[in-house]
Amino acid sequence: MKVIVLGAGRVGGAIARDLAKDGEFHVTAADASPAALERLAAEGIATERADLADPVELDRLVRAHDLVVGAVPGFMGFETLRRVLEAGKPVVDISFFDHDPFELDALARDAGVVAIVDAGVAPGCSNLILGHLDTVLDETESFACYVGGLPTVRHWPYEYKAPFSPIDVIEEYTRPARLRRNGIPVTLPALSEVELVDLPGVGTLEAFNTDGLRTLLATMSTPTMVEKTLRYPGHAERMRMLRETGFFDASPLEIGGAKVRPLDLSAHLLFRAWRLEDGEEDLTAMRVVVDGRRDGRPVRHVFDLLDRYDPATRTSSMARTTGYTCTAMVRLVARGLYDRPGISPPELVGRAPGCFGFVMDQLEARGVVFRETVTTP
Amino acid sequence: MKVIVLGAGRVGGAIARDLAKDGEFHVTAADASPAALERLAAEGIATERADLADPVELDRLVRAHDLVVGAVPGFMGFETLRRVLEAGKPVVDISFFDHDPFELDALARDAGVVAIVDAGVAPGCSNLILGHLDTVLDETESFACYVGGLPTVRHWPYEYKAPFSPIDVIEEYTRPARLRRNGIPVTLPALSEVELVDLPGVGTLEAFNTDGLRTLLATMSTPTMVEKTLRYPGHAERMRMLRETGFFDASPLEIGGAKVRPLDLSAHLLFRAWRLEDGEEDLTAMRVVVDGRRDGRPVRHVFDLLDRYDPATRTSSMARTTGYTCTAMVRLVARGLYDRPGISPPELVGRAPGCFGFVMDQLEARGVVFRETVTTP
Repeated sequence: MKVIVLGAGRVGGAIARDLAKDGEFHVTAADASPAALERLAAEGIATERADLADPVELDRLVRAHDLVVGAVPGFMGFETLRRVLEAGKPVVDISFFDHDPFELDALARDAGVVAIVDAGVAPGCSNLILGHLDTVLDETESFACYVGGLPTVRHWPYEYKAPFSPIDVIEEYTRPARLRRNGIPVTLPALSEVELVDLPGVGTLEAFNTDGLRTLLATMSTPTMVEKTLRYPGHAERMRMLRETGFFDASPLEIGGAKVRPLDLSAHLLFRAWRLEDGEEDLTAMRVVVDGRRDGRPVRHVFDLLDRYDPATRTSSMARTTGYTCTAMVRLVARGLYDRPGISPPELVGRAPGCFGFVMDQLEARGVVFRETVTTP
Repeated sequence: MKVIVLGAGRVGGAIARDLAKDGEFHVTAADASPAALERLAAEGIATERADLADPVELDRLVRAHDLVVGAVPGFMGFETLRRVLEAGKPVVDISFFDHDPFELDALARDAGVVAIVDAGVAPGCSNLILGHLDTVLDETESFACYVGGLPTVRHWPYEYKAPFSPIDVIEEYTRPARLRRNGIPVTLPALSEVELVDLPGVGTLEAFNTDGLRTLLATMSTPTMVEKTLRYPGHAERMRMLRETGFFDASPLEIGGAKVRPLDLSAHLLFRAWRLEDGEEDLTAMRVVVDGRRDGRPVRHVFDLLDRYDPATRTSSMARTTGYTCTAMVRLVARGLYDRPGISPPELVGRAPGCFGFVMDQLEARGVVFRETVTTP
């Protein structure tokens, strides 16, 4: 089966390598940047230098393959997915675009193809877990996802490195967080309700509201749902200070005769401060807590993940956790284990028999291990 | 005696009012801003609307008076002082300019006039105290000045309001602090060596190095000297974060096609955050610690000041402490109690017989009370 990976950045590259390594697929990685393709080509993976924003070029690439992985930057994600579906190809996407993916549901169903979106670790595994537990439990009562990608070595003042563009991180700190409490939709400021969370092997982190529930608000009826981002303690306070002072404002100001958006200047300065250097070790910390009832009794499922940078393959934990979730889903689709046409966020995949276990096994084989704890209070 | 007050801002206005109130002087206040002059005119003080940066206009005003008070913004201060001395008029200055005032010493001496500079609370009273103790003690061994102007009500995140331009405050946080330790000149980053200081009536503040010793480094041989700025705890850390991220950089960056200095954008945003509103209560906290020897025995003199906004006259503590120190020095000069021609920072005034007590009495009469504690360890 011929697979094309659109976007060969940190995560896209890890996806291409993982798909290429056992002979199940013929893999091609496409990107506009020669630098991004160089290392993959050296490892024997087919590469195509291409402007993926060009519809003609994109169409040519997509039509020449059987399955597509979307790993382009978020701002290009929705349009890329639309074009892939117009070409009638099955797709697994991790571009985490802002648009509602269900706008493309009819298109995918008409084409009769599977389109899994948000196929990373969070969103991704968190959705998969809730979808799975929705079939295990009689009812799910609450869902809380705590997740963060962090540098192993902490540097003052931010103790944070951005695996993607700082402007996208700032967006997480400014967009109001939509959540649900006792069945009622609630919108709170990003960075609100900071709490401390102790995680084995990591220590004390802080968790705060961010707008990360995405499709879960549409697909799940779980009455209480929240997603919180994890950082080393103190980060949220610093970000609130910058935000409340106006450093993240997107309206231009006139400064010394020039018009400038504070957000752009801040992103420029924070890019330097938050730059994850090549080989700089990161980790992914995640905890998903689902409360529900089974056979009339309350039960709590907790999934814990602590994943670290892989020095052997120089693969960041962000690329491992997001990329290997994506490649597991690619294998699900390629092997016909998940074949529901239309847009599927991972909670739908998690509801389908066998799929949750398959993804977890694939992840575990790559050292990305969720530890499940079940308690009956 | 006819006195002109150049600059009728918060402090200049308080100076004009204080000098006008007992009939000792004919006072005129000059400023480019009609708004600044309005309230003074309503109180019966003579005002002159004038562009003080215009040498001709300045010369005309200065020559029509017997004594000059310089209360212009720092960036205009040195040139204004030069012109006043060229006109041969005695002057008391609080413009706190960056230049070395002794560059004008020959000019003042040739004119045979007194020119007291840095005639505020700090610099000002701190210098006066050290100059005075230099005559009281056999030797001074160390001098430490802790001083800060703070809002009474603390607002997250800065817990600070700027009584003058934010860009001047930022300058205090970026210019390296020159101090002296055991006779050796030491330069440390601004905002360094943060320590907590407990002051009666205020609580716990933090103190950090700033470049505030100014003339003392040239005039005094005290082997250990430091000046530290007082803020509510946490302020220095926030400022260091902004500085180290580049938000205070003065080199232009190209942002979205426009050239902008991060410093200018930050000053713009912090101007909003740090704006001291009319009637917003402030306080001045100050502690001067001088260790020395007298009659062969170690002795410590501590001067403590806690001054507050005066609601009756709507006069800020910053204007009270700086302005009334200045008016005391004006009276010293007007009455011939201090008559040394040339540039005199207040440590020279403090060395002259009777001057320290005179200034302290004048301040006390206005409710600005330094409490002195002498201990022999």
